[in-house]
Amino acid sequence: MPRVSIRGTQMIHSPIRSLLPYARAAKEQGVHVYHLNIGQPDIKTPIEAIHSLRTYDQEIIKYGSSEGSDELRKVVRDYYRSQVADVDIGDIYITTGASEGILFILYSCFEVGQEIIIPEPFYANYIGFAQVSGVVLKPIASHIDDHFGLPSPSSFIAQITDQTKAIFLCNPGNPTGNLYSKEDLFEIGRLVKEHDLFLIVDEVYREFCYDEDFYSVLRLEELEDHIVVIDSVSKVFSACGSRIGFVVTRNPAILDNILKYAQLRLCPPMIGQHIAVSCFANRAKYLESVRAEYNRRRIFLFERLSQMSGVKCYLPKAAFYIMTELPVEDTSDFCKWLLRDFRLDGATIMLAPGSGFYLSGDIGRNQVRIAFVLGTEALEKSMDILEAALIAYASSELVDTLAVNDHQ
Amino acid sequence: MPRVSIRGTQMIHSPIRSLLPYARAAKEQGVHVYHLNIGQPDIKTPIEAIHSLRTYDQEIIKYGSSEGSDELRKVVRDYYRSQVADVDIGDIYITTGASEGILFILYSCFEVGQEIIIPEPFYANYIGFAQVSGVVLKPIASHIDDHFGLPSPSSFIAQITDQTKAIFLCNPGNPTGNLYSKEDLFEIGRLVKEHDLFLIVDEVYREFCYDEDFYSVLRLEELEDHIVVIDSVSKVFSACGSRIGFVVTRNPAILDNILKYAQLRLCPPMIGQHIAVSCFANRAKYLESVRAEYNRRRIFLFERLSQMSGVKCYLPKAAFYIMTELPVEDTSDFCKWLLRDFRLDGATIMLAPGSGFYLSGDIGRNQVRIAFVLGTEALEKSMDILEAALIAYASSELVDTLAVNDHQ
Repeated sequence: MPRVSIRGTQMIHSPIRSLLPYARAAKEQGVHVYHLNIGQPDIKTPIEAIHSLRTYDQEIIKYGSSEGSDELRKVVRDYYRSQVADVDIGDIYITTGASEGILFILYSCFEVGQEIIIPEPFYANYIGFAQVSGVVLKPIASHIDDHFGLPSPSSFIAQITDQTKAIFLCNPGNPTGNLYSKEDLFEIGRLVKEHDLFLIVDEVYREFCYDEDFYSVLRLEELEDHIVVIDSVSKVFSACGSRIGFVVTRNPAILDNILKYAQLRLCPPMIGQHIAVSCFANRAKYLESVRAEYNRRRIFLFERLSQMSGVKCYLPKAAFYIMTELPVEDTSDFCKWLLRDFRLDGATIMLAPGSGFYLSGDIGRNQVRIAFVLGTEALEKSMDILEAALIAYASSELVDTLAVNDHQ
Repeated sequence: MPRVSIRGTQMIHSPIRSLLPYARAAKEQGVHVYHLNIGQPDIKTPIEAIHSLRTYDQEIIKYGSSEGSDELRKVVRDYYRSQVADVDIGDIYITTGASEGILFILYSCFEVGQEIIIPEPFYANYIGFAQVSGVVLKPIASHIDDHFGLPSPSSFIAQITDQTKAIFLCNPGNPTGNLYSKEDLFEIGRLVKEHDLFLIVDEVYREFCYDEDFYSVLRLEELEDHIVVIDSVSKVFSACGSRIGFVVTRNPAILDNILKYAQLRLCPPMIGQHIAVSCFANRAKYLESVRAEYNRRRIFLFERLSQMSGVKCYLPKAAFYIMTELPVEDTSDFCKWLLRDFRLDGATIMLAPGSGFYLSGDIGRNQVRIAFVLGTEALEKSMDILEAALIAYASSELVDTLAVNDHQ
């Protein structure tokens, strides 16, 4: 029997994967599992987008342009001009989700073995994208004590080698809920200019900022050739399944390279693009109400977590995540235990263990990411469960310790 | 300014790309261009699929399973059991078009530098997929004189090295319209067994066989671990823009590896999957009429081409392409000339130059691929144009030659 590839065998699994059998088993027992572990919001997709399917008038679902449909690129351009930065249609490529966009950028800008400096914790799938493309991620630490704010310029500089090609940021941050300020980005802008690096920024949570205004790196001057932005309709319009993302850059050499990868996969999903156009139709009103809803949840979650003994947290500035520290040794064990052993009124919660968002060894072992993608009532029950679970887990650990001591 | 990657710069362009500016210019002059160069049929997508959009009843377009929706996988399983081979749901992964499926297979089965033996001419984008994944394609020649039938086993064996990992076939063939028989596949089956290779077969044109029955490699016995099939709704249901393909294999190690790549891109397009389910609803009747239509075009095209002086052709057994030899030195030049200089009643044709389907040097320089993706009337006009163009081109070449001689 022929052997499959080593690179495939060594590909990382989704970090949540080891928990899935436990979640499945719990559900089979009739336990309700509150999913706070994933970025799948319960918010409705704009009704205009769903309605646009009903009036779809094509008789043939044809291939479209590899760059994405002109109609969608125009709508995105207009949105960018009004909300983000002044870009042209030619600066925008539609991709099959932000995921594909990230891969296209890595192939287009990096040789195998070249390095990207990235603050951690970061979105776990970046590790997989780097693995597929042979690019090396060099993490630098950000810390819960300063709410995962931007690491100092010197910590970036300390990581620069002759293989360094870019700095990568996720702004607003997944899993941190952090937001980099205009001043932060000016500082990074100076760095990439001075060291001749690319600056790649994942801005898919841009529309969910609660206290401060968002500032896009696309507004930084004299950095046109350095900057690439990743974007998507998935989170903004709660349309994750449409698989529509964007890459935005003014660097013609990057656009040239990406186009070749884009042509290889022919075109992005056509019905997804059709929907995406309608997502933008009533954008301002839709986003106002979604933002208000996430804001309520954010404040509620922060207040509840703050009241729990031994829990370290902060009020996230943006996105719909909070990375919080729990009074347990290893949140992977705790998350398994929640699914396998703990129930409150026939329900439990699923969280994302923090270690999946770090490349550097054990950091984050006592952290979890909580996604506030459920309504207030479900969040309230979830926090009741977490509070009770932490108490029960502490005593179960105590029992385990006593049992171990007993045997010694 | 930071430099983009060499691998990106060296990525091949779509072979049709150099013709696009000429097609655009012709259209701007008001010339009608008959597109026989692409695999985008004019056949309508099943009406059930379009209607399924009108009854889409989800309020949130959510992420789905990375393996594809259970609903679609069941429908595909049932179709396979009735038409192709006995497979289980777990043997089927839904991919974002066959394109993504091919990339997943290459990553999952091959290290960088390992080799695939493939009869040429073949679908041009395979070159790009191999380039992205670092896999080496070793072409072996098939010939127009035997209608691009299967090369001899000895020609496969002659290409086997210690890096050879697989044989790759496209059956039915794009661009050849060839169909490998059951006996052909038995022969290849013996080869892959004996040399411990994978056998990867792109079967996306399976439903368009006109004289002989189709035989899937999935029916070969004792080769479960060797065989991977690529499939798609794009051509069968004229739904290219939905971006829905399938990978089918019974090898659990391949499935394990593919799953990790699939998780990385989260899920295939959800609306595309929704449509695909409905494509299969009235399959038999739909495909009967589509097959009859392609068959009429195939016979018409063959008859017209056979009557043209100096044109070498054959009746394709399957798919909707014919690879034909023209009495010109270089079809790339001829195709450009058609778009730039030749009009009949204000119209011209766009064809795909043969060289794009070959890796080996100059072979195919006098061939073109003609896709019979237009209705009979348009095909008739297209053949009138080709016939007149060949005569005009021959005299224009003569004029050029005389002019050159004049200067000597």
